[in-house]
Amino acid sequence: METLSYWIGMAGTVAFAVTAVLALAPRGIDLFGACVMGIITAIGGGTVRDLILDVPVFWAADLNYIWVAFGASVAAFSAHSLFTRKEIYSLMVYIDGFGVAMFGIQAVDKVWGLEFGLPIAPIILGIVTAIGGGLIRDVLAGRQTLLMSRELYATPVMLGCTLYVVLLYILPEYRFISAVGCCLCIFGIRAAAIHWQLSVPEWLTTKTKTA
Amino acid sequence: METLSYWIGMAGTVAFAVTAVLALAPRGIDLFGACVMGIITAIGGGTVRDLILDVPVFWAADLNYIWVAFGASVAAFSAHSLFTRKEIYSLMVYIDGFGVAMFGIQAVDKVWGLEFGLPIAPIILGIVTAIGGGLIRDVLAGRQTLLMSRELYATPVMLGCTLYVVLLYILPEYRFISAVGCCLCIFGIRAAAIHWQLSVPEWLTTKTKTA
Amino acid sequence: METLSYWIGMAGTVAFAVTAVLALAPRGIDLFGACVMGIITAIGGGTVRDLILDVPVFWAADLNYIWVAFGASVAAFSAHSLFTRKEIYSLMVYIDGFGVAMFGIQAVDKVWGLEFGLPIAPIILGIVTAIGGGLIRDVLAGRQTLLMSRELYATPVMLGCTLYVVLLYILPEYRFISAVGCCLCIFGIRAAAIHWQLSVPEWLTTKTKTA
Repeated sequence: METLSYWIGMAGTVAFAVTAVLALAPRGIDLFGACVMGIITAIGGGTVRDLILDVPVFWAADLNYIWVAFGASVAAFSAHSLFTRKEIYSLMVYIDGFGVAMFGIQAVDKVWGLEFGLPIAPIILGIVTAIGGGLIRDVLAGRQTLLMSRELYATPVMLGCTLYVVLLYILPEYRFISAVGCCLCIFGIRAAAIHWQLSVPEWLTTKTKTA
Repeated sequence: METLSYWIGMAGTVAFAVTAVLALAPRGIDLFGACVMGIITAIGGGTVRDLILDVPVFWAADLNYIWVAFGASVAAFSAHSLFTRKEIYSLMVYIDGFGVAMFGIQAVDKVWGLEFGLPIAPIILGIVTAIGGGLIRDVLAGRQTLLMSRELYATPVMLGCTLYVVLLYILPEYRFISAVGCCLCIFGIRAAAIHWQLSVPEWLTTKTKTA
Repeated sequence: METLSYWIGMAGTVAFAVTAVLALAPRGIDLFGACVMGIITAIGGGTVRDLILDVPVFWAADLNYIWVAFGASVAAFSAHSLFTRKEIYSLMVYIDGFGVAMFGIQAVDKVWGLEFGLPIAPIILGIVTAIGGGLIRDVLAGRQTLLMSRELYATPVMLGCTLYVVLLYILPEYRFISAVGCCLCIFGIRAAAIHWQLSVPEWLTTKTKTA
């Protein structure tokens, strides 16, 4: 199981870096910028989490995260036309969604294990880990961040991480199966949002109130 | 006194979260985004300060800061029309001003107690604590940050924190009364700026030089 | 040599703060904003590096970095017309280029000495140290960051830091001379880019692919 989760993590890292480079390519970016943005997107969220937890940053102990993000960024930059092919791009968006789900739940698990600020800090740091890298990328690129859009991207992470914390409290003996379930739950909502292009319902936004 | 300062801190936290949500609401934001932005605005500055000091983040030891910011964000989002009523909104702006003053001075006190980078680091980290959360919020929301505006928001914090450090040097035995005085001094300037809509005088800006 | 490198570091700090203030002045900035932006630009990159390394921030042990950045910001703000004179401004741009080169190589050296995440973390943190302050400044000012431009600013830093790590591996006994050489190498490319207004070649950007 450890190995499986490790490989899924690497696939998520690839997807984070690739979707970052593809999102920025139309604005014109050089090879160096592509690598920096790809790496920041892939490891930024976990880095902020580890700084707040005051533990060594996760990629210092396992540089594969950097190498994989670097390689994926170079590949996405070089083989741009390959990755923008409809099937490949779709695959990347779904893997990205799975990466978000898994990194969020893994972070909750890590923070829970450290007994840091229970019960709410695990949820907050789960969200930070899942979407922090993308936020830093958008800020550095001058793009609108997803916090200001109605895309269903961060909300499922929040729901899944909250559910996982609740399950850790009431069913501590089912830690592993809860983690898998919550991860699939986040991914399920995200995949549905991608497939049917769902967005946050209007009554949960301020648009209607002000318009 | 401890208790009083604690409750004022909580009131400041409420005001930070509420003013953040109200500022972003016209742009359209969903419930999740409102909570994230409210919490970041309320605890962002202190978090950056604690990372630089290399001490545990303040909210890990007292999660009430998170809960209060979360509750205030949900309230501001739900009861939007209540909080935009003139009297309530004015009250929030003044409490926000008081929160800025108090968080700044409290941070100077904390950094001074740790004897970290005296004498200038307490002033810098006081400013970071007071306005850091708002800066992160504006960057994530794609708004112009207050550093580029002429609003009298951060300058009084700088003056008050500097004055407090000077007083700590020359009158160390009056630490508490100095803190209260400097806090009121910051709030006084800020309140005057809100009431009479004062801004930084033109000769202290570069506008005239370039126009 | 220590003393020389220290003074060059201070000159770099001055140049970072001055170029920051001059870059933001046309947008209108007050004295407080100028100081904050100047200081952040000068020490921001090294601060992020030290947070990730989990070592005390470098300026806490030597506050001269803050004082010098503060003084340079005030000077650039007050004597704006002096610093925008062609010769002075050119000099500042070249010193800025030298500062970027030296701070990058010094950071590689520091991270290497701590044996942190070899071999790739030194390169990443060298880049972070050299350009991080400027990135934070641009984000806070709402300007396009250099990651999205084709200016030859960060790419030479990456090349020089990579070269230095390679030389540390194959010629560990020539550590000092390698550092000087790589620093000059970065500065040489940067100076050529300034003088002949070179930019990243088109085949290394995505512009042609999408246009």
